[in-house]
Amino acid sequence: MATLTGSDLLTQLSWRYAVKTFDPAKTLSQSQWDTLEQALVLSPSSYGLQPWVFFNIVNKDVRKRLQAAAWGQTKVVDASHFLVLAIVKDFGQAGVDAFIKRTAEVRKTPEGALDGYTKAILGDLVNGPRHAIINEWSARQLYIALGTLLTSAAVLGIDACPMEGFDIAQFDQILGLDAKGLTARVCCALGYRSAGDKHATEAKVRYPRSQVVQVVA
Amino acid sequence: MATLTGSDLLTQLSWRYAVKTFDPAKTLSQSQWDTLEQALVLSPSSYGLQPWVFFNIVNKDVRKRLQAAAWGQTKVVDASHFLVLAIVKDFGQAGVDAFIKRTAEVRKTPEGALDGYTKAILGDLVNGPRHAIINEWSARQLYIALGTLLTSAAVLGIDACPMEGFDIAQFDQILGLDAKGLTARVCCALGYRSAGDKHATEAKVRYPRSQVVQVVA
Repeated sequence: MATLTGSDLLTQLSWRYAVKTFDPAKTLSQSQWDTLEQALVLSPSSYGLQPWVFFNIVNKDVRKRLQAAAWGQTKVVDASHFLVLAIVKDFGQAGVDAFIKRTAEVRKTPEGALDGYTKAILGDLVNGPRHAIINEWSARQLYIALGTLLTSAAVLGIDACPMEGFDIAQFDQILGLDAKGLTARVCCALGYRSAGDKHATEAKVRYPRSQVVQVVA
Repeated sequence: MATLTGSDLLTQLSWRYAVKTFDPAKTLSQSQWDTLEQALVLSPSSYGLQPWVFFNIVNKDVRKRLQAAAWGQTKVVDASHFLVLAIVKDFGQAGVDAFIKRTAEVRKTPEGALDGYTKAILGDLVNGPRHAIINEWSARQLYIALGTLLTSAAVLGIDACPMEGFDIAQFDQILGLDAKGLTARVCCALGYRSAGDKHATEAKVRYPRSQVVQVVA
């Protein structure tokens, strides 16, 4: 396996920071972007249900409209790439059915063989108590994908900035997400940090490890 | 920078799967574990607020009690390491104050210089509309840490399994989280896959990339 050493991983996670200013002249290569998209596709989710769609906003006019709905943050237009991460609204039976169908297709399993699995998922998320928080359950899964993306970018040496500061209703309207049964929850700009971003050299603020990770011995 | 190639990253993310059966005879080295803990410490969160504590459950009796509150899943006791990821309940002014104090300490900033930043955070999360969903906001941040952990483990060649299937109230009670103002949201077992885990060789079920990542051109 071509893995990273622990020391190299931590170097990359320390190198990562939430980029405030991107270099608008630098763009990721197609190969870099393909890797990031594929990392998102491979992201884990509960039961593997993938209750999400990721929008790669290439259109510059759309980027400008999104920027206006995100307090004017320059990274929306300046970063090489800008992703809007959306959840499937009110994930339910249709989402489970689609996933089981896909499972049968990918694994060449007779659909009947998955009935037990289908029942377990439905009993938990659709007909069970977690249905009451289904949009939050989906948002949490989306944030696994965000963590996967940010860590993947870091180990590739690609800069990123996650972004919660935007008007969800306006984003949904601009991207036509309502009609698709989707709603935006978080964004991520990706590209190259500007040489002038002073935040790049600020010390990372973290609580002491002994406080963040507590041992139950 | 000692980064991973895109191809090696994708190989590791494809190698990763939600391990069902861990090899109880194999344990992670102290150095591997230190790296994973440090990756958690370095995990991004909104504003850097880190509204979380991670519990490393070393005690075997506690593991058994947690297993009983998690549908008897063997990974709780068989995996080399077992983490319970908890959020700070009702994150508010105290959490913001602690973070600002820590920022001043780490960056040697006079606290007054951070007043604007403090106000922005309070206006958003404590006195703003997002306060109504503060525990969900914290849970989302926790899932960034989970994504960071799972991806870090994958690029290190360490096996893992995230786990939502447990009784939160029982976990909180067993670990005494209530008294600490915390509540468990997700777990993660880490270690080595058992040679007999047939899930290791099953094809990964993902929707086509063109469906998961949509281009707004």
